[in-house]
Amino acid sequence: MAEKLKIIPLGGLGEVGKNLTVYEYKEDIIVVDCGLGFPDGEMYGVDVVIPNVSYLSRNIEKIRAIILTHGHEDHIGALPYLLQDINAPIFATALTAALLKGKLEEHHLAKIADIRLMETGVSFKAGCFGIEPIHVNHSIPGAVALAITTPVGVVVHTGDFKIDVTPIKSEMIDLTRFGELGKKGVLLMLSDSTNAENSGFSHSERIVGKRLAELFENCKSRIIVTTFSSNVQRIQQVIEVAARYGRKVGITGRSMENMIKVATEMGSIDIPPDTIVEMAKLRNYPRDQIAVITTGSQGEAMSALFRMAFSEHKFIDISTGDRVVISASAVPGNEKTVSRLINLLLSRGAEVLYRSVDDELHVSGHACQEELKMLIALVKPRFFMPIHGEQRHLRTHAALAHSMGIEPNCTVIGDIGRIVEVTKKSIKLGGTVQSGRVLVDGTGIGDVGSVVLRDRQHLAQDGMLVVVLSLNSEDNSLLSGPDIISRGFVYVKDSGSLIDEMKSLVVDTLEGCSLNNITDWATIKTSIKTALSSFLYKTTKRSPMILPVIMEI
Amino acid sequence: MAEKLKIIPLGGLGEVGKNLTVYEYKEDIIVVDCGLGFPDGEMYGVDVVIPNVSYLSRNIEKIRAIILTHGHEDHIGALPYLLQDINAPIFATALTAALLKGKLEEHHLAKIADIRLMETGVSFKAGCFGIEPIHVNHSIPGAVALAITTPVGVVVHTGDFKIDVTPIKSEMIDLTRFGELGKKGVLLMLSDSTNAENSGFSHSERIVGKRLAELFENCKSRIIVTTFSSNVQRIQQVIEVAARYGRKVGITGRSMENMIKVATEMGSIDIPPDTIVEMAKLRNYPRDQIAVITTGSQGEAMSALFRMAFSEHKFIDISTGDRVVISASAVPGNEKTVSRLINLLLSRGAEVLYRSVDDELHVSGHACQEELKMLIALVKPRFFMPIHGEQRHLRTHAALAHSMGIEPNCTVIGDIGRIVEVTKKSIKLGGTVQSGRVLVDGTGIGDVGSVVLRDRQHLAQDGMLVVVLSLNSEDNSLLSGPDIISRGFVYVKDSGSLIDEMKSLVVDTLEGCSLNNITDWATIKTSIKTALSSFLYKTTKRSPMILPVIMEI
Repeated sequence: MAEKLKIIPLGGLGEVGKNLTVYEYKEDIIVVDCGLGFPDGEMYGVDVVIPNVSYLSRNIEKIRAIILTHGHEDHIGALPYLLQDINAPIFATALTAALLKGKLEEHHLAKIADIRLMETGVSFKAGCFGIEPIHVNHSIPGAVALAITTPVGVVVHTGDFKIDVTPIKSEMIDLTRFGELGKKGVLLMLSDSTNAENSGFSHSERIVGKRLAELFENCKSRIIVTTFSSNVQRIQQVIEVAARYGRKVGITGRSMENMIKVATEMGSIDIPPDTIVEMAKLRNYPRDQIAVITTGSQGEAMSALFRMAFSEHKFIDISTGDRVVISASAVPGNEKTVSRLINLLLSRGAEVLYRSVDDELHVSGHACQEELKMLIALVKPRFFMPIHGEQRHLRTHAALAHSMGIEPNCTVIGDIGRIVEVTKKSIKLGGTVQSGRVLVDGTGIGDVGSVVLRDRQHLAQDGMLVVVLSLNSEDNSLLSGPDIISRGFVYVKDSGSLIDEMKSLVVDTLEGCSLNNITDWATIKTSIKTALSSFLYKTTKRSPMILPVIMEI
Repeated sequence: MAEKLKIIPLGGLGEVGKNLTVYEYKEDIIVVDCGLGFPDGEMYGVDVVIPNVSYLSRNIEKIRAIILTHGHEDHIGALPYLLQDINAPIFATALTAALLKGKLEEHHLAKIADIRLMETGVSFKAGCFGIEPIHVNHSIPGAVALAITTPVGVVVHTGDFKIDVTPIKSEMIDLTRFGELGKKGVLLMLSDSTNAENSGFSHSERIVGKRLAELFENCKSRIIVTTFSSNVQRIQQVIEVAARYGRKVGITGRSMENMIKVATEMGSIDIPPDTIVEMAKLRNYPRDQIAVITTGSQGEAMSALFRMAFSEHKFIDISTGDRVVISASAVPGNEKTVSRLINLLLSRGAEVLYRSVDDELHVSGHACQEELKMLIALVKPRFFMPIHGEQRHLRTHAALAHSMGIEPNCTVIGDIGRIVEVTKKSIKLGGTVQSGRVLVDGTGIGDVGSVVLRDRQHLAQDGMLVVVLSLNSEDNSLLSGPDIISRGFVYVKDSGSLIDEMKSLVVDTLEGCSLNNITDWATIKTSIKTALSSFLYKTTKRSPMILPVIMEI
């Protein structure tokens, strides 16, 4: 039996974010991307979510390379955690490498990481794999797809991409190269499903620049533009338009300042001379000569734009007449925070332009249906596997592939941890490897598990009560207490009688235990908890967490 | 000086939900709608939000009528709370009244409520006000606008509305009546802003029926349709289509069963004979003769559809081939739960049809820009006040009114609790009255305030620690403890050494206090809290709530 190529997604399937795909053939492994995800609404207190990579830790000697398709967090953000265990050469294009270095410095890992530059059109080897990066369009420069030559055939891994015929400071996606590969024969394509539900073509980045120019022309007020800090092409356009209309540009927000610094150093942004000024010096200019580029496009509560709207920003205070341009869309899950920011800005008297009322303020970085189909038509893969998306996106993308003539049994919908086995003649789902998600909270990686999360959910819902009492260790008589401390349940100052009722219920319960010769403290605690719990549910329809504490004297 | 008409919104402005508008002239008050809102993501544990009506409680003797425009929760849901203090005659059309009665029965208030039926075209008096209900289209039958004749002029209050030229089992909105009022002269219009950001016209309910018919035609599998339980016209269409294609219909989900029962009794739904069957009996029919109407269109975790997808429903278990139709859109804030449900259903092998991929599966119940403009053109109000919406919707609606020739100084953007003063010749913002939101949690109305919410947020974020120790009341020596109990912070079984470090830190802190002759317990507690807090932030970057408990023996 011929050896199989194994493709093992450890993230990015059935979800948006934490993309990580393992390619394994005999003794060689390469890892494509290593991203993080963000917690959903029920993961209280969790900062980020990373893939469980224990499969890689157990196969550490096989790993020949980690290859990054571009510099977004959902493709590189988990690397600092991975590198604590696994140190393989990391291949990235120039901007991606520069962004990664900054990130690793924050984690004190910059010195140990072996980062190597890769270039589009220049193939390199990693074990038995040959890798050719191919230029694609996306909402950050330096994005590539990968043509991976494996012993069973060529695999095209698109990463995130779109087709932009008129990108900014860049070329159109190298459709020719995809077509050449298609003519020679591609065994399998893994393709970006993020926008698989969206019909038609995505718009070019250039239309946003055109719209921005209209908004800057003849505007008499300050203009404040927010976008994703990684959207370097957008930032380039804002700076160019501002310069064209004679405005100075201030930059604010940590990630925005950082990104513009790195992108400028790497030549990914061209800043016309005398355009950028320090935020502190903006006040020296009249309002119609001021533009600001800021973080806060997702309505984040601590972002610079949010602080401007709340008069908590050091240099800018939103006031009547300011023109605020939200050049971004709300990432799913952020609709409410973005809406809150828009409302807040409006009530401060600003004129706010946002995508619901002006759809030329932002374009997506991901291919829509016609682009996805065009790539399939060019690459003509024998097998197809949609990646980067929830079930709904993956399945819609698979249906598109079917409509392009790829047979259903040549398509695989994968799952995190599920091995996809590929030979020259077949593709199928195989067994599973250890996988899943690891929650990061503060410095703790993985120590917030289901018990801790469930407790946080319980505490969030109804708060908690601590019942404290001291018992005489000889006869279990009450020496002091019961005292009741509550947080997040009721406001104690207004609830004196409820607290008194709880106290006497605890005393009654203790007496009941004593009468029944119950002396073991675990049982006494359970009795107190049960009695209070049912009393409180009856009187308040709430179920706070109840913690009886008995001190033995 | 002439007396003014005061319009006081106590809810529904700068927000979506809890609509309540007070009209006051001298000694007379009428209340239009009394709705509830839903908690935002940061109001942990809160069930519903209702308007603060203390202004009404203080003016109880003036209230002549509570008038309900239709039976949605955001227009009637707070009445059970209001009626506990304020018992005025309630005017509603037939279906609204029937729904309200059911609701009041649950709150044991049905007997005290004085509910009176009103009919479109039949005016009635309430104090100095004359009220004429006008038929409008909306996503529930029996919706009306109100023409309110006041001593200063006629005010048109639209309630929620849309223009549907071909509604189901109903007439088109009574545009003629709006036009007649406009010809006679309308002083002020308050109009629904929910869809003010949406260009064009909303679609007719009828297009959904057409699409449903296509989905039922030649379908060989079970068909499961979910929609809002209050969307009686939609339910009517599903039942009709099912009957036409020879399917039996099962109804599941408490609110759906209840709504269909009430709507059938009121004649708002016509059910063809032998169409509805009990859920338990569905299994007697082949799959291509089964249809189910279910709750769960918002992905609610306990809804019937969610339970079907998780194999936890008593009668239906989603399996390969089932066709699931989500005939609804996600209410803002519910995007993620709806997406989770879609993904879950897909991974169970169902074919899922939802609005992102098929926009004829649902139509909105609110007027879009062209409809809003048409109503302004018909009513030709002198003054205009947008209602029902966040700032973004209100301001966009006001801009539409300006585009229709209403002068900016004839338009008012109101706010909750802010009096709008109207005379024959002017409209302006006046003073404020007590207002705001009241949080309902279980049986508690208003006892969850900012302190309790802040504690819940803190507990949710990082959990908590209780540090318990007993001190000798004479010399403050440690008699027992310190014991540390944590919930939602770290998993204690894996964190033994951290707990030990905390304990010795507490002992050190006590010794420090003793050396410095600190004997008062409040200071000792604060010292323990501060020491632990800074230690934990340094080691874990987390800030759990810390509760020191000292027992005196």
